[in-house]
Amino acid sequence: MADGLKQVIVVRTDIGMGKGKVAAQVAHASLSAVEEAMRRRSDWVQEWKAEGQPKVVLKCSSEDELRDMQKKAGAAGLPSALVEDRGLTQVDPGTVTCLAIGPAPDERVDAITGRLKLL
Amino acid sequence: MADGLKQVIVVRTDIGMGKGKVAAQVAHASLSAVEEAMRRRSDWVQEWKAEGQPKVVLKCSSEDELRDMQKKAGAAGLPSALVEDRGLTQVDPGTVTCLAIGPAPDERVDAITGRLKLL
Repeated sequence: MADGLKQVIVVRTDIGMGKGKVAAQVAHASLSAVEEAMRRRSDWVQEWKAEGQPKVVLKCSSEDELRDMQKKAGAAGLPSALVEDRGLTQVDPGTVTCLAIGPAPDERVDAITGRLKLL
Repeated sequence: MADGLKQVIVVRTDIGMGKGKVAAQVAHASLSAVEEAMRRRSDWVQEWKAEGQPKVVLKCSSEDELRDMQKKAGAAGLPSALVEDRGLTQVDPGTVTCLAIGPAPDERVDAITGRLKLL
């Protein structure tokens, strides 16, 4: 079990965000999930950073999918963070834009997000 | 001086990164600059988070521009983080992809990045 750790961020593609908006939302999700992980599994965070903090950005097409994956992450004991945008630009207030899962062991993240494609 | 704080991430557009790659690089820069800020100006980080951790993603067209802005940020006492990609996908190893400045007071960041356009 010499697997690594990673963080996956899943972005909705059904709400028409531009490249910069997506990047800002992904950064927000990433940071929030790292903070969550620091509270519960700081060992994962340290190991992930030592590996170069690998991140993979995937896509999905609905809020329901994000919420479903967040539930699965919680049930599996993985840190996660769902981002609701304040809606100042491009999307309506309260729009759920993306979900970060991890840092966590590769295979445990893949069990939830493995079927999704790269953004 | 009731200005807010923000983090700006400047991305190179001359190296052909896709949307997901850009998002992952921006998240990396963002997280690294927040860590740098925590070591030197944790008050800025706390205040920025309380404001909803606003982030703005801008673009530039060369590594030289990023390095020049990083020097200016350092001289101005602002936290920053330059990302060099490991080059596993899309770009060559060691490619400088983006620069995060802040969280820091809006006007101090704008003095360095104010002329750049949104990505």
